[in-house]
Amino acid sequence: MKQLTEKCLNIIQPRPEISHKGTFGRVVLIGGNAQYGGAIIMSAEACVRAGAGLVTVITDSVNHTALHARLPEVMVVDWYDEQQIDDVFATADVCLIGPGLGLEKHSQELLAFVLAHQSKQWLVIDGSAITLLANTTFTLTVPEQTVFTPHQMEWQRLSNLPMNQQNQQTNQQAQQQLQATVVLKSHRTEIYHHTGIYQNPLGNPGMATGGMGDTLAGILAGFLAQFPKELATIQAAVYLHSYIGDQLAKNRYVVLPTEISAALPFWMNYFANA
Amino acid sequence: MKQLTEKCLNIIQPRPEISHKGTFGRVVLIGGNAQYGGAIIMSAEACVRAGAGLVTVITDSVNHTALHARLPEVMVVDWYDEQQIDDVFATADVCLIGPGLGLEKHSQELLAFVLAHQSKQWLVIDGSAITLLANTTFTLTVPEQTVFTPHQMEWQRLSNLPMNQQNQQTNQQAQQQLQATVVLKSHRTEIYHHTGIYQNPLGNPGMATGGMGDTLAGILAGFLAQFPKELATIQAAVYLHSYIGDQLAKNRYVVLPTEISAALPFWMNYFANA
Amino acid sequence: MKQLTEKCLNIIQPRPEISHKGTFGRVVLIGGNAQYGGAIIMSAEACVRAGAGLVTVITDSVNHTALHARLPEVMVVDWYDEQQIDDVFATADVCLIGPGLGLEKHSQELLAFVLAHQSKQWLVIDGSAITLLANTTFTLTVPEQTVFTPHQMEWQRLSNLPMNQQNQQTNQQAQQQLQATVVLKSHRTEIYHHTGIYQNPLGNPGMATGGMGDTLAGILAGFLAQFPKELATIQAAVYLHSYIGDQLAKNRYVVLPTEISAALPFWMNYFANA
Amino acid sequence: MKQLTEKCLNIIQPRPEISHKGTFGRVVLIGGNAQYGGAIIMSAEACVRAGAGLVTVITDSVNHTALHARLPEVMVVDWYDEQQIDDVFATADVCLIGPGLGLEKHSQELLAFVLAHQSKQWLVIDGSAITLLANTTFTLTVPEQTVFTPHQMEWQRLSNLPMNQQNQQTNQQAQQQLQATVVLKSHRTEIYHHTGIYQNPLGNPGMATGGMGDTLAGILAGFLAQFPKELATIQAAVYLHSYIGDQLAKNRYVVLPTEISAALPFWMNYFANA
Repeated sequence: MKQLTEKCLNIIQPRPEISHKGTFGRVVLIGGNAQYGGAIIMSAEACVRAGAGLVTVITDSVNHTALHARLPEVMVVDWYDEQQIDDVFATADVCLIGPGLGLEKHSQELLAFVLAHQSKQWLVIDGSAITLLANTTFTLTVPEQTVFTPHQMEWQRLSNLPMNQQNQQTNQQAQQQLQATVVLKSHRTEIYHHTGIYQNPLGNPGMATGGMGDTLAGILAGFLAQFPKELATIQAAVYLHSYIGDQLAKNRYVVLPTEISAALPFWMNYFANA
Repeated sequence: MKQLTEKCLNIIQPRPEISHKGTFGRVVLIGGNAQYGGAIIMSAEACVRAGAGLVTVITDSVNHTALHARLPEVMVVDWYDEQQIDDVFATADVCLIGPGLGLEKHSQELLAFVLAHQSKQWLVIDGSAITLLANTTFTLTVPEQTVFTPHQMEWQRLSNLPMNQQNQQTNQQAQQQLQATVVLKSHRTEIYHHTGIYQNPLGNPGMATGGMGDTLAGILAGFLAQFPKELATIQAAVYLHSYIGDQLAKNRYVVLPTEISAALPFWMNYFANA
Repeated sequence: MKQLTEKCLNIIQPRPEISHKGTFGRVVLIGGNAQYGGAIIMSAEACVRAGAGLVTVITDSVNHTALHARLPEVMVVDWYDEQQIDDVFATADVCLIGPGLGLEKHSQELLAFVLAHQSKQWLVIDGSAITLLANTTFTLTVPEQTVFTPHQMEWQRLSNLPMNQQNQQTNQQAQQQLQATVVLKSHRTEIYHHTGIYQNPLGNPGMATGGMGDTLAGILAGFLAQFPKELATIQAAVYLHSYIGDQLAKNRYVVLPTEISAALPFWMNYFANA
Repeated sequence: MKQLTEKCLNIIQPRPEISHKGTFGRVVLIGGNAQYGGAIIMSAEACVRAGAGLVTVITDSVNHTALHARLPEVMVVDWYDEQQIDDVFATADVCLIGPGLGLEKHSQELLAFVLAHQSKQWLVIDGSAITLLANTTFTLTVPEQTVFTPHQMEWQRLSNLPMNQQNQQTNQQAQQQLQATVVLKSHRTEIYHHTGIYQNPLGNPGMATGGMGDTLAGILAGFLAQFPKELATIQAAVYLHSYIGDQLAKNRYVVLPTEISAALPFWMNYFANA
């Protein structure tokens, strides 16, 4: 197992001068039922501030107004509007599904749609979407373009590994079966990839609060949209999320997820010019 | 009667390195009818920023969007959704009921539900919930895990002590009948507990504005969720709320409740490392 | 005509130590139809930050969520809920009616209600409410507790004085007929009162933007709620509103009304301790 | 082709002392369907902070609350309310149509209304409105008071010039046919006007994010409302938008459109006093 270092942030480079919003990718975020709508809002804030060029949120319409009140920079699609979902997904470069998605029948249908239609898109599967998959048999369409971001309990459900049997070896075996990349979140998050295991040395207990994972997933989607679609970009998202959390924890007992998103543009600029 | 001192903030210690959001407790906040929805929003902001791990707000659906527009970090349950209320309450460590709850029939039903189902949960009873109880005969399920946070008029209703007959002796007798802890809010808040009476020496008249009590109740719930469930934690919540109010009043004529919540992470960090 | 000076801010004194939110007054704000809802939101922000103890906003329900998303510190009543309006108005110390009220039939009914029920309440009549009154014959219930805050066009409607015939003499005559105090807003606002005419020397063209008057009206209501109900308090509200506007204009080309409200607690503290 | 320089900001002068909100113009902004509501919210924030005296937003009612939660300084009209649209448009000095307008039948109707009723109004045509026009044959009512703000793909649709055939000569010919001013947005925005072509030397790739054009359109409308209705004002809007973007990019990897709006009052003050 290798430790991530600040070097992994080299993926964050000054942007090409001649570019437009399409250059930095189109992202679709799917999640947010009536109870967990805040989750997809937090993912969206992270994704926009991470620099994705164009972000559309597909969510329960109950979340529409709160989302726009915080973040007019995104577009919104009602998650029952099949036509618009088709249109938006078809042109997306990256899709994050899961934050606050819930376990309802419609949540399952949205997930099935995404798995069935993934082609060029990179796919980040988080939160409820992991639990939904764990409850069924499924086949990933393009596993090498798929990233799971479970916490340990979600990983137990997905991998069938009880938490006390989760270790590098068993986790790696499970990752090899999935063929997708696994970002296993804990106080020291580990990335399981076919090239090896990578541990994030950063992070702090002030980050242990609801929404922190939704924010990481949003950053990950935003990074995959604009940076090379490869392991290094996933590593950078994980590392930077915790790096900013550590910076903020210097004068905060609890670090709110939305504060990490707010600080993203500053720290990305810092490392792009480091 | 003993005076609280800064020592009572010793309960705020650096967090354990190996932890996750569950480590810092699950809190359910119940309140907010159509007229007083701001109250439960303010409690939620206080509770999240005080460091509770996971916070769910059970409220009238009219408050859903404003809550999420300010605070995507919480989850929301419609207060008519009995199934979800059952589920969320069952796994909660702390429940705060009362801010903006109102005196309607449904408010009463929610309160009855909470009293009937309290088991492991600590319970903070505030605002309208105190008035509702004062209007009925009631039995606390787990009084030693129950905290009342009345202002003087609510205390009159609950204890049947007219305000001009409220003094240390009569208040203590009333507390002994209730068996619960009583945080009696005034310009010098007093805590009545079976071990004695504790007075808060802090606070200032700039804090005399609507919502200040809702914020204290939210901090209290957040502290009980993550710190030892004991008197010291209640004392710390009361003391810190006023301490921050005094800090902010140095350059504010009126201190808004939401400003105290915003400053919580900074001051908790300050005292954790003092 | 006398010039107001900084001395008029002497009315802003340190608050009494032994006090509670009721000490600083109950205010009811009535206004905000579907088109002009922002106006009553701005009044509410000004009123709360000016230090009113308890503020209730009676408005079209379409404005409820935006109001609470910005300002959970207020309570809200649907302006069609007659029972709640009765209850809230009866206990109010000050009522502001008019910001964004509109000229509809229901707007007129609300205004008629207020005029018919004014007793102990001080009344601030602003915006659409002035236009509504100008279109009818009316009798003020307690004119000596009533303040009008027209701009020059609204004053023309109310006084029947064409703008080019508005001068100190004609304005004073019109004020004497009304018996109420008139705050005539312009680039140099004048206060017409039975004791004389007072001109505000402050203010700047960066303040010439929609909502500035709604903010002044909110400050006025908040000041009357907590300070002596007399001319000096009206003068202080007018003067401080422009004083802050001038401070902010030092580094802003346009001064947003909500920025003046945000700065109120700081400047009130400054002058309370000057 | 001439390069714009900082001199073009001379149009931003200290405001006349004797003025009121009407002095700085009435603007109507039309746009924001259910999917793209954030666009018109961002235009509105830009327009208000650019200093327009009075701003009304005509939009799908689904956007009403999010708009007011962010910006109570504007007025709102439901875009199906024909009577109010008539009234508001008739008194407007400037109309911006297009941000998030969509391509629906009703979007088309609103655009047709505006084209049919333009008289004294300056008209800024942006986003979906450009695409709608490109799909039909149309005649501008007052082309010399009309500004188009296409990005390169929208310009292709409007001018029938494929992107690889867009150059100074072809663009100028297309502009001459339209007779309107064309602000052709790219990493180096160009202004096509009957007097010549003007290139903006500023801007940076951190500005390549969704909503940046909506913000420029809002600034443009706000500038035309208060400054002379002429080329110089259009130049200043384009230049300042990028100037602020460059300032913000000094410590941000991505510059959010709403951050540019927030900084407008500061930089306008800076240049007014330069």
